[in-house]
Amino acid sequence: MNPKDTSTGTLSYEQAGVNYDLIDPLKVAAQRAAAATGANLAAHGFTEVPASRGESAYVVDVGPFYLASIVECLGTKTLVADDMQKLTGKSYYDSIAQDTIAMAVNDLITVGATPLVVQAYWSAGGSDWFGDAQRSQALVAGWKRACDTCGVAWGGGETPALAGIVEAGRIDLAASCTGLVNPKERLSVGDKLAAGDAIVLLASSGIHANGLSLARKLVERLPQGYLTKLPDGTTYGEALLAPTVLYSPVTEALYKAGITPHYCANITGHGWRKLLRHPATLTYRIDKVPPVTPVLRFMQEHAKQDDREAYSTLNMGAGFALFVRAQDAQRTVEVAQAAGVAALVAGRVEAGPKQLLIEPLGIRFGDDDLQLR
Amino acid sequence: MNPKDTSTGTLSYEQAGVNYDLIDPLKVAAQRAAAATGANLAAHGFTEVPASRGESAYVVDVGPFYLASIVECLGTKTLVADDMQKLTGKSYYDSIAQDTIAMAVNDLITVGATPLVVQAYWSAGGSDWFGDAQRSQALVAGWKRACDTCGVAWGGGETPALAGIVEAGRIDLAASCTGLVNPKERLSVGDKLAAGDAIVLLASSGIHANGLSLARKLVERLPQGYLTKLPDGTTYGEALLAPTVLYSPVTEALYKAGITPHYCANITGHGWRKLLRHPATLTYRIDKVPPVTPVLRFMQEHAKQDDREAYSTLNMGAGFALFVRAQDAQRTVEVAQAAGVAALVAGRVEAGPKQLLIEPLGIRFGDDDLQLR
Repeated sequence: MNPKDTSTGTLSYEQAGVNYDLIDPLKVAAQRAAAATGANLAAHGFTEVPASRGESAYVVDVGPFYLASIVECLGTKTLVADDMQKLTGKSYYDSIAQDTIAMAVNDLITVGATPLVVQAYWSAGGSDWFGDAQRSQALVAGWKRACDTCGVAWGGGETPALAGIVEAGRIDLAASCTGLVNPKERLSVGDKLAAGDAIVLLASSGIHANGLSLARKLVERLPQGYLTKLPDGTTYGEALLAPTVLYSPVTEALYKAGITPHYCANITGHGWRKLLRHPATLTYRIDKVPPVTPVLRFMQEHAKQDDREAYSTLNMGAGFALFVRAQDAQRTVEVAQAAGVAALVAGRVEAGPKQLLIEPLGIRFGDDDLQLR
Repeated sequence: MNPKDTSTGTLSYEQAGVNYDLIDPLKVAAQRAAAATGANLAAHGFTEVPASRGESAYVVDVGPFYLASIVECLGTKTLVADDMQKLTGKSYYDSIAQDTIAMAVNDLITVGATPLVVQAYWSAGGSDWFGDAQRSQALVAGWKRACDTCGVAWGGGETPALAGIVEAGRIDLAASCTGLVNPKERLSVGDKLAAGDAIVLLASSGIHANGLSLARKLVERLPQGYLTKLPDGTTYGEALLAPTVLYSPVTEALYKAGITPHYCANITGHGWRKLLRHPATLTYRIDKVPPVTPVLRFMQEHAKQDDREAYSTLNMGAGFALFVRAQDAQRTVEVAQAAGVAALVAGRVEAGPKQLLIEPLGIRFGDDDLQLR
């Protein structure tokens, strides 16, 4: 990363400090080794669901239902909360708590699971992190509220003080989540996805918890920094800290309404390219895009990104994608909205080469634009 | 922590940098909030096992069996591995991987669960951490081997690069683990523990992953540092890095042998005081202690700790305690040894005040010596 290259020109994700080339060889080695351990379940009379390898949550067939589990990291959003606390005196850790749970829960539900238990992983740079009572209470209160919203039990967790590993004054937040796919027909690891399905997009609340490296880098370009006002009057920092939407109330309400998604994609890192997550050769044609959250429009403008780059990195107003039968599309929107989450029928799945066509914006992403497996 | 106080005198755990007074108020608030979320399970037709609150793993009754889950942190043992890699050129991350999984698995099994799925949480200070191929490969290989030993599937995980939160060149390692108590009769959250039960202790391999702050602090007192030779010829650093014993092969073998422990305690932080973990008012009388692992004896001597302080902090050769029916005690030892883990019948549970009596050493720990709940 070279600061002088990023002061005025287009700011990409790699310039913001994340080098996937270095991480990916390890990921590939880890995925291969992990895949080889699936056979260990046979000794207990169980089997893995092979299609869940490469999906957002790992699924095991334990007989009467499927068991799904996951661990997820918040990332660097705490750095924004820490800076904003210095500027405003307010703790944003209630929102940060929800973000952390959302990272885990929103991934777990993609396979059709009902989240049941969340465990907290709060790894601080020293015991003194926990001495800030306002911040600690905000973290606890936000964590509980998010658990209540999702109907999960907060099982426990770890609160280590790791001086020498986590930086002084900082905290590394993560959550694990365990759930059940019950009844088993709810499993949505992708075998049902087909041409003709509708694509329903659920609204995001803002940046959620991906793209924060870029968001933080942009602050250097703003004379008012995090206190820069957006057109709607909120500050950039506050807008970034809008908590991630929890989507499990929507997926649970859909089940109760008799709608089983054929597939789901949590739109996190890689932005809308996540719509290409499914391994099949299919075309995803988008004919309507949701309104872009103001903070994301602001980021796009100040990072001087064209639409293609912005939609390839950020959620641009769509936090979660549901692929449902065409005849369920409108009802899916209604159920989501009744659960408090704006939604729209954005497009459809078609036979054709693997590609995502965002027609209103003239953008095409091909298979080579997303390599997650 | 005041360095001048620690240069020659007795070195306690608090002097080594962990201040539980600052962590505990947060823990209490978190535990209360977490307990209030248990009722959320009712909406899914499930219930928590209340006795598992305060135990090492959280347990939910999902009908045909119990679901157990946990997330656990390795702690600061990576700092020893990093220093040793500089001194020897060798990566110790295969052992570190096993330590991390042991932290999760050895806790999960205390409730009677069979561990099924492990998720990896590897949070690095920057993408470049993963660029050290030798180290990355050691981590992956050790992780896989530990999963194979425990018969668990490695479901996946997270490998974030968190510059600004995790220190440059460091990694924060954790593991989540999900398992089932199946059949439900295997549940061992403590209702079966009674006077007359035998206490069987399983051997540790060394320091395991607790007491590392103290171990690292001691290095400052050793002219040869981590390369100081122990009486058995190994270096202090290598001895510290002996991987934690994985105890799930023992608990699984016990089940197959028809032995269901009444209670289990994973001996981690707080050393032997963990034998007082169960909430009941009972006396634990120890009449035989296992051999002290050389590295722990070495630490005790150089930290100038008396036996009481050493046994209150370190595992002193006993990594896991099984409380079994008296008539199962000898067979428990045999099953453990057949699974490759040394064991001994160390004592018994008696009616009486809540206390641990380590008779060969003349030590008594009372109820006020361990407040975990």
